[in-house]
Amino acid sequence: MTKLTMVSLGAALAVAVSGCASAPAPKYVMMPGPTARPFSAAVIANGIIYLSGQIGLDSTGKLPPGGIGPETKQALENIKAVLALQGASMSDVIHCTVMLADISEWGAMNTVYMTYFPTNPPSRSAFGTQGLALGARTEIECQAVVPAKK
Amino acid sequence: MTKLTMVSLGAALAVAVSGCASAPAPKYVMMPGPTARPFSAAVIANGIIYLSGQIGLDSTGKLPPGGIGPETKQALENIKAVLALQGASMSDVIHCTVMLADISEWGAMNTVYMTYFPTNPPSRSAFGTQGLALGARTEIECQAVVPAKK
Amino acid sequence: MTKLTMVSLGAALAVAVSGCASAPAPKYVMMPGPTARPFSAAVIANGIIYLSGQIGLDSTGKLPPGGIGPETKQALENIKAVLALQGASMSDVIHCTVMLADISEWGAMNTVYMTYFPTNPPSRSAFGTQGLALGARTEIECQAVVPAKK
Repeated sequence: MTKLTMVSLGAALAVAVSGCASAPAPKYVMMPGPTARPFSAAVIANGIIYLSGQIGLDSTGKLPPGGIGPETKQALENIKAVLALQGASMSDVIHCTVMLADISEWGAMNTVYMTYFPTNPPSRSAFGTQGLALGARTEIECQAVVPAKK
Repeated sequence: MTKLTMVSLGAALAVAVSGCASAPAPKYVMMPGPTARPFSAAVIANGIIYLSGQIGLDSTGKLPPGGIGPETKQALENIKAVLALQGASMSDVIHCTVMLADISEWGAMNTVYMTYFPTNPPSRSAFGTQGLALGARTEIECQAVVPAKK
Repeated sequence: MTKLTMVSLGAALAVAVSGCASAPAPKYVMMPGPTARPFSAAVIANGIIYLSGQIGLDSTGKLPPGGIGPETKQALENIKAVLALQGASMSDVIHCTVMLADISEWGAMNTVYMTYFPTNPPSRSAFGTQGLALGARTEIECQAVVPAKK
């Protein structure tokens, strides 16, 4: 083994090790659309996509009529859209927090929620709140893994 | 150094590096027992065990009588059981979120909670909710590290 | 290549690989000051700093007068101080959860909050609670990345 080879191998090993110790800088993903918000849509760090809580705002910036069912659906569609921007999907979601305007709507939320996670549902917590931004009935926050490159 | 050796080393280094960049697929752990729930008991991803929030349901599927004290104890026992399935224990817990039906029960929850973390307590947040699933007095969510293999 | 060299390289690769698979033990950071609390100020695991939720207690251990504005400011100053102990700053924060005593104070909280994250704001969720510890108007929980060594 030549000295040069030893050095190259040493460098390669150093990269391998430091690749573990020090992750790349976080990536901040802004919400598409004209409105400035005090949060990013998602931040990616250490292989995890940390999404902001999503309420059911539709493309016109309004909550859909009909309450908890339609709002749960729209919030999950918004999450799906943010994930898609990162090449990820609902099957990459590992954990969710479901905030409800009223815990009595837990069942109605679940009926819609479960259709988005037919297999391998994320771990989850859920609770009733004193109120949510813009009078929403639910806000849903998820974490997902960055999917392996194909 | 033969060409073959170089190739083998290259492959080994590639494994080392990609082992960092792309974590293994998440592992979904279902709750033991007959009831289907809209969440996994825990999901393991990137070296972290993300548990679902646990309320104090006992082995009969009921909340114990006596309110916040017994419910806190049972919720933490449930967390302990989910961790044990992964070869982990309460000393691997790094963060908890404590949801309370009434913030005035914060002290009573703490009295029980602290006995489960005698040293190195996890970081934590706690708040009062408008209500929890099944009328529980508390729901506790934890994250833990996957313990190092012995 | 000698047998010895092969063994050394094998060992180096094993370190590189296990450095990925098995992260160093979590680091528990206690809150400075005399009061024992049932939680650490922060726990560092897998490259992430998991902070406890902070309310706006000042150096005298009291909430500042003036409600949501001053309390938001003090809570964020407390977060900044815990991060600084780890060589991190507000620009390393990736995600926050904002708990409010009253969701109607969301706007007033935001006015102060945004000044702490002028660029690359963390992803975030926010909700109204039934109450917070010590009668606080807000509790803010953050996760941050361990900054790369300079």
